[in-house]
Amino acid sequence: MDKLIAKIDAFENPSVVGLDPTLQMIPAHIKNEMFARYGKTPLAIAEMFIRFNKGIIDAVQDIVPAVKPQIAMYERFGLEGLRAYMETIRMAREAGFYVIGDIKRGDIASTAQAYAAHIDGTDVEEEEYDLWQEDAITINPYFGYDGIEPFIAACNAKNRCIFALVKTSNPSSAEIQDLDSNGVPVYERVAALVSQWGEEAMGASAYSRIGAVIGATHKAQGERLRALMPRTFFLVPGYGAQGGSAEDIRGFFDNEGRGCIVNSSRGIIAAYKADARYGEENFADAARSAALAMRKALRY
Amino acid sequence: MDKLIAKIDAFENPSVVGLDPTLQMIPAHIKNEMFARYGKTPLAIAEMFIRFNKGIIDAVQDIVPAVKPQIAMYERFGLEGLRAYMETIRMAREAGFYVIGDIKRGDIASTAQAYAAHIDGTDVEEEEYDLWQEDAITINPYFGYDGIEPFIAACNAKNRCIFALVKTSNPSSAEIQDLDSNGVPVYERVAALVSQWGEEAMGASAYSRIGAVIGATHKAQGERLRALMPRTFFLVPGYGAQGGSAEDIRGFFDNEGRGCIVNSSRGIIAAYKADARYGEENFADAARSAALAMRKALRY
Repeated sequence: MDKLIAKIDAFENPSVVGLDPTLQMIPAHIKNEMFARYGKTPLAIAEMFIRFNKGIIDAVQDIVPAVKPQIAMYERFGLEGLRAYMETIRMAREAGFYVIGDIKRGDIASTAQAYAAHIDGTDVEEEEYDLWQEDAITINPYFGYDGIEPFIAACNAKNRCIFALVKTSNPSSAEIQDLDSNGVPVYERVAALVSQWGEEAMGASAYSRIGAVIGATHKAQGERLRALMPRTFFLVPGYGAQGGSAEDIRGFFDNEGRGCIVNSSRGIIAAYKADARYGEENFADAARSAALAMRKALRY
Repeated sequence: MDKLIAKIDAFENPSVVGLDPTLQMIPAHIKNEMFARYGKTPLAIAEMFIRFNKGIIDAVQDIVPAVKPQIAMYERFGLEGLRAYMETIRMAREAGFYVIGDIKRGDIASTAQAYAAHIDGTDVEEEEYDLWQEDAITINPYFGYDGIEPFIAACNAKNRCIFALVKTSNPSSAEIQDLDSNGVPVYERVAALVSQWGEEAMGASAYSRIGAVIGATHKAQGERLRALMPRTFFLVPGYGAQGGSAEDIRGFFDNEGRGCIVNSSRGIIAAYKADARYGEENFADAARSAALAMRKALRY
């Protein structure tokens, strides 16, 4: 997490912008142009997403250290959508962002090895390709260690990171994650495993390369997990639109104000819809304003 | 599951071939041709996978009812790889196979809605696209109901299916899935949820549209889950190369010999490597022979 932590420190801003566009969010001037040019096609959507994300990237690049594109929003539009995902990552890296691919992959070892290409690159015999280019990805830990080990190896080989789901932000997360296991909820058992996996992947900082996803909507649980997982960096979704506040997550940080990066998606990228001072033409200015407000809220 | 069950009955064969190619599996004549034509590139790999899969598809189409491409094997090669995944699905559907996309997606509701495009198609305003075309997909249930509901809605709208992970075939599956929750392992709690979700998605047959993934490597657990989940169809990986035998999984079927489809990947598609009667030129004949042997083993 060294690279991410350095960027957060430099910007004095532990937040990440979720680049999760939907057609409903795209301002009319972009939508009309692309539909006119490419018809009602996935190609038109891909070009809209690229244009929209470029606007957001340009508007927040001097204040926000990281972006987190949610691959599902692109995958729903097939190959053209995934091309837009890759182009978004390329643009974000070029602008200096740390890029977290929110892909939540997970499988048995031989399959996890294939998914690890997201951070490890891909060899075609002696030729090496870095096709996906994420600095970090999210993963699902339900398979246990042998499904995680290929990702850990990739993290160590390439100095990249993963964030494993521990306690997710959604209301139904309790159904499986909060099951009682001899007096301890399942997500704490998962947290213990994630901590343990992290011992195999320490970098130069106090935090390992194996982070955890902890929803902003679970104040008490997040505070307890911070104590239980002192060397695990948290990726915190659920801030803003999903209901988590800056006050709720204050205790997710360590005593030096580190240990966390907080995501907001709709609250930043669709801010123009909620703020009458901006028309849709000025969606990027609205995003900048919302990102500045979020930074201020997180500077406790 | 009506469509899948009808195909299994027609072929008298409850097996599915995992189309999970790797570069190491590709016979030299295909590899050399594509490297010569396209260089050491992801495009060359994509063309190899398409050619290889077409050989398998042609060789088993009159004896096997379903195929299950593992998306990770294609995703590792970026957009070209994913194009090969889509082309594989297109070829398989054209040949009459039921296609299970092994994608193991899962996320919060708004994101699950986007992933549901795999089975639900994608709208671009009034234009409808079915970009992915799987008949069924695998999903990860760690988020609980609100992350599953969009998939259930898609299943009911399009008469397609999902298979939720319950007890996976890998050795480390015990770490989280077997945690004790008041005398019951977590995977049985997950099984109860999956059964319950299935009540919202009944078709004409006795089995719901919400299936479960149960590894062939867990004989006693699978038998117990069959009793606990009488209306849940099982997708059973872990047969063959991973160690599960026909005898191990006999009790995963219902009294009429239905309720299960058993996957073999390497054991079928790379059969030529294990059977000296076939050279690599005859990889498809070896696959057919292995598929026939598997059908015979599963006709108890």
